[in-house]
This record gives sequence, C-alpha cells and structure tokens, in this order.
Amino acid sequence: MINWFHHSRSSFPRQEFSSSKKANSVGFIGLGQMGFKMAQNLYNKADSSLIIYDINKSATQDFISMNKTSATDATLKSIDIAESPVDIVRRASVVITMLPSSAHVEEVYLGKDGLVHGADKESLLIDSSTIHQSVSKEVAHKLTGKGATMVDAPVSGGTVGAEAATLTFMVGASSESDFHRAKPILSHMGKNIVHCGTVGTGQIAKMCNNMLLAISMIGVSEAMNLGIQLGMDPKLLASILNTSSGRCWSSDTYNPCPGVMPNVPSSRDYEGGFGNTLMAKDLRLAVSAASDARVTILLGAVAQQLYNQLANTAEYAKKDFSSIYKWLIKSGGK
Amino acid sequence: MINWFHHSRSSFPRQEFSSSKKANSVGFIGLGQMGFKMAQNLYNKADSSLIIYDINKSATQDFISMNKTSATDATLKSIDIAESPVDIVRRASVVITMLPSSAHVEEVYLGKDGLVHGADKESLLIDSSTIHQSVSKEVAHKLTGKGATMVDAPVSGGTVGAEAATLTFMVGASSESDFHRAKPILSHMGKNIVHCGTVGTGQIAKMCNNMLLAISMIGVSEAMNLGIQLGMDPKLLASILNTSSGRCWSSDTYNPCPGVMPNVPSSRDYEGGFGNTLMAKDLRLAVSAASDARVTILLGAVAQQLYNQLANTAEYAKKDFSSIYKWLIKSGGK
Amino acid sequence: MINWFHHSRSSFPRQEFSSSKKANSVGFIGLGQMGFKMAQNLYNKADSSLIIYDINKSATQDFISMNKTSATDATLKSIDIAESPVDIVRRASVVITMLPSSAHVEEVYLGKDGLVHGADKESLLIDSSTIHQSVSKEVAHKLTGKGATMVDAPVSGGTVGAEAATLTFMVGASSESDFHRAKPILSHMGKNIVHCGTVGTGQIAKMCNNMLLAISMIGVSEAMNLGIQLGMDPKLLASILNTSSGRCWSSDTYNPCPGVMPNVPSSRDYEGGFGNTLMAKDLRLAVSAASDARVTILLGAVAQQLYNQLANTAEYAKKDFSSIYKWLIKSGGK
Amino acid sequence: MINWFHHSRSSFPRQEFSSSKKANSVGFIGLGQMGFKMAQNLYNKADSSLIIYDINKSATQDFISMNKTSATDATLKSIDIAESPVDIVRRASVVITMLPSSAHVEEVYLGKDGLVHGADKESLLIDSSTIHQSVSKEVAHKLTGKGATMVDAPVSGGTVGAEAATLTFMVGASSESDFHRAKPILSHMGKNIVHCGTVGTGQIAKMCNNMLLAISMIGVSEAMNLGIQLGMDPKLLASILNTSSGRCWSSDTYNPCPGVMPNVPSSRDYEGGFGNTLMAKDLRLAVSAASDARVTILLGAVAQQLYNQLANTAEYAKKDFSSIYKWLIKSGGK
Repeated sequence: MINWFHHSRSSFPRQEFSSSKKANSVGFIGLGQMGFKMAQNLYNKADSSLIIYDINKSATQDFISMNKTSATDATLKSIDIAESPVDIVRRASVVITMLPSSAHVEEVYLGKDGLVHGADKESLLIDSSTIHQSVSKEVAHKLTGKGATMVDAPVSGGTVGAEAATLTFMVGASSESDFHRAKPILSHMGKNIVHCGTVGTGQIAKMCNNMLLAISMIGVSEAMNLGIQLGMDPKLLASILNTSSGRCWSSDTYNPCPGVMPNVPSSRDYEGGFGNTLMAKDLRLAVSAASDARVTILLGAVAQQLYNQLANTAEYAKKDFSSIYKWLIKSGGK
Repeated sequence: MINWFHHSRSSFPRQEFSSSKKANSVGFIGLGQMGFKMAQNLYNKADSSLIIYDINKSATQDFISMNKTSATDATLKSIDIAESPVDIVRRASVVITMLPSSAHVEEVYLGKDGLVHGADKESLLIDSSTIHQSVSKEVAHKLTGKGATMVDAPVSGGTVGAEAATLTFMVGASSESDFHRAKPILSHMGKNIVHCGTVGTGQIAKMCNNMLLAISMIGVSEAMNLGIQLGMDPKLLASILNTSSGRCWSSDTYNPCPGVMPNVPSSRDYEGGFGNTLMAKDLRLAVSAASDARVTILLGAVAQQLYNQLANTAEYAKKDFSSIYKWLIKSGGK
Repeated sequence: MINWFHHSRSSFPRQEFSSSKKANSVGFIGLGQMGFKMAQNLYNKADSSLIIYDINKSATQDFISMNKTSATDATLKSIDIAESPVDIVRRASVVITMLPSSAHVEEVYLGKDGLVHGADKESLLIDSSTIHQSVSKEVAHKLTGKGATMVDAPVSGGTVGAEAATLTFMVGASSESDFHRAKPILSHMGKNIVHCGTVGTGQIAKMCNNMLLAISMIGVSEAMNLGIQLGMDPKLLASILNTSSGRCWSSDTYNPCPGVMPNVPSSRDYEGGFGNTLMAKDLRLAVSAASDARVTILLGAVAQQLYNQLANTAEYAKKDFSSIYKWLIKSGGK
Repeated sequence: MINWFHHSRSSFPRQEFSSSKKANSVGFIGLGQMGFKMAQNLYNKADSSLIIYDINKSATQDFISMNKTSATDATLKSIDIAESPVDIVRRASVVITMLPSSAHVEEVYLGKDGLVHGADKESLLIDSSTIHQSVSKEVAHKLTGKGATMVDAPVSGGTVGAEAATLTFMVGASSESDFHRAKPILSHMGKNIVHCGTVGTGQIAKMCNNMLLAISMIGVSEAMNLGIQLGMDPKLLASILNTSSGRCWSSDTYNPCPGVMPNVPSSRDYEGGFGNTLMAKDLRLAVSAASDARVTILLGAVAQQLYNQLANTAEYAKKDFSSIYKWLIKSGGK
C-alpha cells in the first residue's frame, strides 16, 4: 500500500491490492475549501487509510504536508495520492466526491478515467457535491449498472461545519441499507445524516431548502427595512417577528440587520457564513429544476435574479447571503 | 338611546353622567366578525358597562339580544347602544374601535359626529383596526390635540382568537404609561399584548409581520411543490425543512401542503384561518407604506399581486391564505 | 375686470362681472413646472383673458412679471390673480387645473374654497392633473351635481411638450359635445387631443400607457444589457430589435442605451425627459387602481418597485426614466 | 442509403464523389415541423441536389414521398437519404441543421457519427436551431478547428414563415465573407437575412428579441386588462396605446385582446402563431444565458415563470403566446 512518507505510488502494482485492503481504504476526490476539511475529519476519525485525488496537484500535496507530522501509525492509516478517479475506485471500496459543479461530477464519474470504469459490486460511491438533481440520478443510474451502490449526499453547514464535523448531510439512497452503509462514514464529517428518499432526493431536499432560505432571507430583509424606515426599533421589530407568524430561521437565528443579533454575519459586516455566490448557484439549480419539473416558482425566480446580482458585484460576491439586507438599502442610494 | 333592559337613552340626559359613571363605562365601535366577539369578551370579563355603536343597526341589536339572557347584574354591567361615536366618547372614558378600513377610521374619529368632538383628557382611545400607519398617526395626532390618549392596537389571531380571547395585540403607544393604561383592557380580549413603540408602530409591526408571513407562505408553497413534483415525500420534505435553515412558521406550524399536518387549514380544504382577502388587504397597506417610506419590496410586491389574485377569485376569496399552495398547482392546470 | 397692470383686485366687486365677461375668461389653477408653460401657451394663443391661481404666491407673481412686457392689448387679454379656486370659477366659465396629486385636486375642487362652491351650468372644468382615476370620477360626480361640465385630461409630453404646445391630452368626457367643448381650449396647449371615453378614462388611458411604457423600457434595458454583455454591438442589436417583434417605442424612439440614438436622454447622461419620480408616481397609481379593479399586474408591480427605487435614489431621482438601463448595470457593480 | 428514383446509396462509393458533385449538393438535418418546410423550399428553389437526414426515419421517407411526383429533372436535383450526419458532410459542401435543443446539436455535430468527423475546408455548416449561445460558440469552435466554416442562423417567423419562405434568419458569422456565403442559401428559405455579428450572435439576437417580446406581450396584456376592467373600450384603448409611448409590436401588430385586431391569434382563440412552449424554451435560454453573463433580468425571469406555467398547462401548451392575456384573466377566476 502506498504511503506518502515511505515510497512512491509506482512501486505498488495494482494487482497487489487484496479485497481486504480495498475494503479498508476510503477514497476522497475534490480537496477544495469544503472537501479538504471534510477529508481531514475523515482521516482523523475513521479507521481507514485515505486515497485522495484532485486535478489541482497542489491541493493533494498540501493535504499530505498538513498530515505528515500528525501521522502516528503509518501502517494503519496511510494517505495516498491516486493517479485518477478510476485508480481510486479500484483501490478503495468507498469513494467520496466533493466537486464544484454538475460538469465536474460527470467528468469524474463518467469521463475517460472516471469512476464508472472501475466501480463494481463492492463499491460505495458518495457524492457530496451540490449539483443538478437530474445529473445525480443519471450518474447513479450508470454506476448502479456496474453493480455499485451510489448515494447523493449534499451538505449544509459551510466551511465552519466542514471543519467542526458538524455538517448536515441530506442523503438520497435507494434503500435503507444503502443509507445505513453510508451513514457511519458521513458521521465522521457531520452531525445530522438525513435520509431524504431515493437517489437524487438529497439534491432535491437541499435545493428546496435553500430556495426557501433565500426567499425567507429577502423577506426578512424587506420587512426589517420597511419597519425600520417607518420608525421602529430594529431589535424590538425582530423580537415581535420572532414571536409571531413571520418567525423564521432568517429572523430568529441569522437576522440580516446589523446589531440585532451578536455572532451572526450581519454583525461583522457580513464576513464568513454562506456566500452569495453559493446561494446564487443553488438558486440557479432550483430555477432549472423547476423548469424541468414544470413547476412555477415566482418568488424563487426573483430571488435568483437578486442573488445573481449580488454574486456578480465585487462588493458582495464574497459576503454572506444575509448581505442582501445591505444591498437592498444601498442600491436605493441610502 | 337604548338601554335594552331598563330604559331608553332619553331618560339619561348627558350631563347626568358623572365622571365616575363615565370612568366605569367602556365604549366599543364596530361589531363586525372580529369586533362582535371581542366586545363579547370585554363584556364578559371587564367590570364595566358597555356602550356599543355600529352603523349597521342590526349588529348592535344582535349583540343586545345575545346578551339579554346571560345578563345577571344589570345595575353593574349594562349594555347600551350609542347614537354616534361622539355620544360614546362623552359617556365612556375608554373607547375601542374595530373598523374595516382607513376611511372608516377617519370617519369615526374625525367625521361630523366623530370621537374627536367629544374626546378630552379623560379619554383613552384604542383603535384595533388594521389600517394605513400614516392614518393611525394622523388620527392620533388630532386626538391628542384634544388632550386624549390614543393607541393603535391591531390584532392577529383571527376570529378564532377573537372568540377565545387569545388575540395578540400589537400596540403603538407614545409612552409606557399609555401602554399600561391600555393593557388591562386589551387583556380581556387577548393573550399577548406587545408594546411596539410609539403611536403607529402597532400598525407597522403587524404590516411587516404579515408581509413576511405572506412571503414565507409562498416560499414554502413553491419549495414544497417543487420537491414533491421532483418525487419527494411531502411529510419527509417538510420535516427536513423544519430542521434546516428553511424552517419558518409557515412550514412548521401552518404547512400549506394537505396531509402534512393535522388541524391546519390545508388539511380541511383551506377552510377557516386567515382569509386571502385579509392578507391581500394587509399586503396592499405594505406596498403603499413602502412607497411612502421609499423602501423597495420586490418580493412583497409580487406577493401582493398573488394574494390580490386569490382575493378576487371566487374559489379562493374566502379560503385560508395557505391556499396559495393549491392555487400555484391549479393555475398550472395540474 | 381686474387687470394686473392697472389696478388691484379689490376695486372690482364680484357682482360687476357680466356673464359675457365670464364667458371670455379662462381660469388656470396650478402654475408648477408643467402648468406654468401650459398657461403661457393658453395666454398667448387664446382670445381670452386669464385668471390664475396657485397656493404658491410667487408662481402667480412670476407669471405676471413674465408677461408684463409682452402684453400689447390689455383690454382684450388681461391676466388676473384670483383669491381662491371658487373666486376663479365665479369669474371664468372655463377652468383648467394642473395639480400634483389626488389630495390637491380634492382640495381645489371640493375643499372650503373649492370650485364646487361656485360652479354652475355655465362652467367647464378641465383637470389635467395625473391622479387616481377614482378621484377623477368622484370629483366629476360632485361637480356635475352642480350642473357643471367636467372632463379629465391628463397629459403626456413632459415640460418640452408643455413649452412647445405639443402635449397629448387624454380626455375623459361624458359626451361627444363635452369633448368638443374642451378640445379647442386644449388645442392651444397640445397637439393630440384624444377622446378616451367617459369621465375618468383620460386617467385610465394615461396610466395604462405609462405602465406599459415602464415595462417596455425595463424590457428593452434588460434585453440590450444581456445582448451587449454577451458580445453584441449595441447599435446592431437595437436595429435588429427595431425590425423584429421586440420593436417598441422604448427601443426605436427612446433607446436607453447610450450611443445608440442621438438626441435622446440616454445620450446626454439621462438629462431632461420624463423623470423617474413621475414614472414612479404613475406606477403607484396603476398598482393601486389594479388592486381596486381586481386585476393582477405582476410585471407592473415589479416595475413599480424598480422605479420607486430610482425615484428614491439621489443619483437617479431627477434623471429620465430610461436611466433604468444605467441603474440595472450599476446596481450590479459594473 | 436510398436515392428514391435512381439507385441505392451503395452504388456510389464515397471516393467517387468529385468535388463538383459535393459542391452541388446541400445537406439538411432535422425534418421536424420547421425543418421539413424549410427543406422543401430549399429543394424547390435551389439548383442543388438535397441529402437529408433525421433520426426519425419516417420524416425522411415522408419527404421523399412528398416530392416523388413533383420531380422533373432527376439528374440535376435528386433527393437522397444519408446514413448519418457524417455521411452528409462528406457528400455535401453545405449542411443545414434544424434541431430541437442544445443536446441534439451537440450530438449531430460532435457525437460519434457527428459532422465534425467529416467536415473540412470546403464545408459550410449552418445551424438554424435555437439553442444556448454558448453551445453555438463551442460547436463552431470545434468545427472551425477542422477548417470548416460555421454560422448560427436561428429563425423567427414560425411554421407559417417556414412554409412561405418568409423567415427571418439571424446570422452569427465570423466574417462578412462567411455571411455572404450563407446568405444565398438562406434566401431560399427566408426573406430577411440579418448579419448579427460573430458566431453565436444569431442566437443572442434571437434570444434578446424574444425575451423583450415576451415582456412586451405580458405588459400589453396587463395594460389592456387593467384598462378594460376599469371601463375602457378595448379597441379605443389599443388605438391610444398604439399612438403613444406604450406602442409596441405586441400592441399594434399582434394585440392579445380578442376582437381588437382581425387575423391575429387572439381573434381565433389563440390558435396558430408562436406557441407558449417555444416561448418558454426561449425564455429559459435567456435566463440561463443571463446567469452566465452576470446580467440581472428581473422582468425576464418573471416572464419565464409565467410562460413556463402556460407551457405546462394542458389548455395553453399549444396556444399562441398571446394567450397570456386569457390566462391572466382566467387564473383570476373571471
């Protein structure tokens, strides 16, 4: 087994890997902002060796460097860099992917060196990317055609949750047993592991939640702004909304009006949190899925335009999505 | 003047009313669907005589009839029908008004026989109508010019809350002492009595809450409809939203999707609850106030159009406002 | 008859005015930006004496000063300042009003010294204000109750049209004869005098046109912006739209994209033209009338919010309404 | 391979085709509702032999059957069915494609038997499909890599224009010479051949125009509905809009209100014309392209939702897009 601090990959021909070695390895593809932290928790908590892959070579090297000193028992828990997605699935029975878009998922799973070419009955593939639900379904369909098990498991909780291993995973799994096979692995990286239904429903649940979240957040921003401009005290208004029928997570847990709550992005100039760019992406998936599903989402469509605007404005692109409050006021020149 | 069980009004010349009698009487103007039930609770619970008025004579007669048999101590707690608003304010130190629109409030307070012509330092005027916040402020300004105390105290809780005396009153009062003078009277008719700030803020708080409520309800409807059309189980989707950042009163307490929750309007074909007509009215006030306040409310404006549509559709006009869920599906012909 | 350069008003007691003198006088109330120029054209072109009124005394004085030197035949065409609206209608058989809002029209027509108190069978009242159509109807109803003839005749064409006497008047008149009585007078101030139907339809036609205009202008701005960002040449794109089914006045006569057409506001940094504040006002009337009429106007409502935003932004408040193009780009931070 | 009146494809080995034979043949791929009629005009008017292809075999057979009797000079103008897209491009120097979606275009151009595998310096490829502009650019990029010339040339004018050869072609061509090479061929099928700029601009121009068209049509529908509900005569209102600043193609050439104009879809229960399904598709392309281009299109996004709704409603799916007028009224239950 290749271990990054002992020898190079090439000294271990593929055939050498026994089924048991494969069973004891977990693959992780996609070491971006989220994936890096998730893979770290997996490495720290799971009893498995880790095989990692990223088209960005420096990401995998950084991961190796980061863990060099902390490694205590190299024989049990090594970290290895794979040559390609298919290389990983041949050497690890469980593979987790965390990729930025539908196109990347298609490439990693179905492309020339994609997972589909090495997956078999032993394989469990967990895609935690947030992508178009129809792509999740299509990819899963092709992988299960090879006998593999596949679940979609997009996350919420952001980089903070990824680091603290408190993510929520919304899991689409064809059966209870598929779900229970994935759950212990996801538990190393998250706190709430929710079974949403069959394959693809993880994506659907996340998309529906985030669309509702965006609408609520804009709604709270409009209501707070209106009340304040008419003379109400922000904290008093928020407390009234929070004990009335307007109550929602965006008002009582993540209020977008600066000064109403401590320790939320609105009280630190909208730094950190869930960025406008990511919200714009999720809303775009929702608008596209709604067209496919023949569903009309008027508020969702307006919300998409507003977050698209924020995502494309230098001042707001990297801010938390509650900065829509600031934008609503500022774009009015006040 | 009619005192239904003892004598006619004419036997009580105005000057005869001592300050103590006036202090022991409460006036109530506007015996509509809400006002009738509120006045009943007031009569049942308060130690005061009641003087009532409504331009619709049969409403006051019905109230008298309703209470004939239940009256036990006529000397202490009589019910009297006043000739006009000004007649009431001359005979009762506290007057509550519950009227359908800004125009009615202007007429009852500032019209020919309006309260302004009889109000004095002793008078406490409580307007529980839901009207334009600028009218609340203007009326209060004129009444306080006469030395009277005025508060706006619109309600939420609907006819069910009016009957059960569990209404929430959102009170705009210029001072803590004004608020505390009104509170015990309102407590006979409601459960939560919230001080929202100075005069007019009761209206503002209610309007902001209801606008946010409408936006959330449409948001939940769009999200539930999208998820269900894409294949998710309604109850499962609702439970996910309710433990995620999309959580809101419209999803966890009043879910608009039939079958998700028992005992809410969506599970009885949207009967009862808070009607589309009333929601349309509140949204119209919000859009108008936002124009005045120079505030942009894009989702609020779209919500107003949708509820205006429902309020003007025979099938939906009298249904609960969560019926937007049904309308979204049906207007798509499904 | 009072003539401003000979003697003061007080030397002419009211009873002195013969019917023929009254018939030869035209009253004008409201000498604002539009009214001043309109009254000037009326004075220049009509064979009538003019009696003017404005609550702003300096406006009437300025009008007098402006015309002092140009007066050539004082006996035939004098200018007089009235004491009140009712004073005008007693001395002039035709009265034109050009006022900023529904409230002003109600005051001038129905208030304490309002026109209604002096109007009679001889009176023709022409209201060129842009106001709520229901107010037009209500005021006309009260005036015709006094035997007077009343028409609503809001204008389009802006201050440029007012100065050049090229305004379009949209006239609501109960009968063809009412319309033909008003037409020659309006012809002194405008070029197109259109009979839109019964009283109130002038307001309705203008409101419908301007709502459509706002929607088209935003539509052209979105389409031009989208095409240009995707790489198209602005002039070429405009020429394609203008010969295709997207063609509209906002694209072929008043294109909002700088450089596409000469001599339109977009080519002079949106100076002049029809201001965002006025468009916001007209859209507000439309949204309000649509609620009354039980009509859903989704695009109209979104347009109102956008123009409300522009009207309330210092940078845009006084710009032409085609500046929505600039705002759409700039609010995106580009 | 079938040459329906002379010989089978197999009698003509590929190498046999001289450059002059190839130069004298035109290929046409996609014989759907539009393509069938376009190919017919091409066959009727051009001096070229035609080679056709469609995955639906009956479409090509129908085309052959249709033209059997009318053929007069078989040697000059034969019709041949190709085996695949690549088969066509090897035998015809000009190939026109008319396909339903981006995915189909990718398959026909870049798929296993796609045009890219046979295209060379001699090839002129004209794609008249309405697809995502980025796909147009990507496909053209790959084809020009083989030395071929490619232009995008989406059409407007519908099946009526396709039949009458009066279509408008919006052409994206990298150079004037590319454009002039395509123009004479397109002239057999259309009347207006517009050069919109470089490759992809044909799609962009069409998309921008149709988005503006949708917005205008909804705007006209809202304005007409509002005016009529407030009491105006439909024809009179239309005539006022058409001579005012609200004037647009949707009001003066294609008015959506029944009875206002003869010979438009609104006067025959919205039969014929440009269907809601096609408009929904174009708007979806626009919303997607706007997200890519970082452009905010609020009215465009609302328009997309409305047409998505109509396209998914049995009653409206096949109606002309001006039926939004009827839907606006009916969804309000009137």
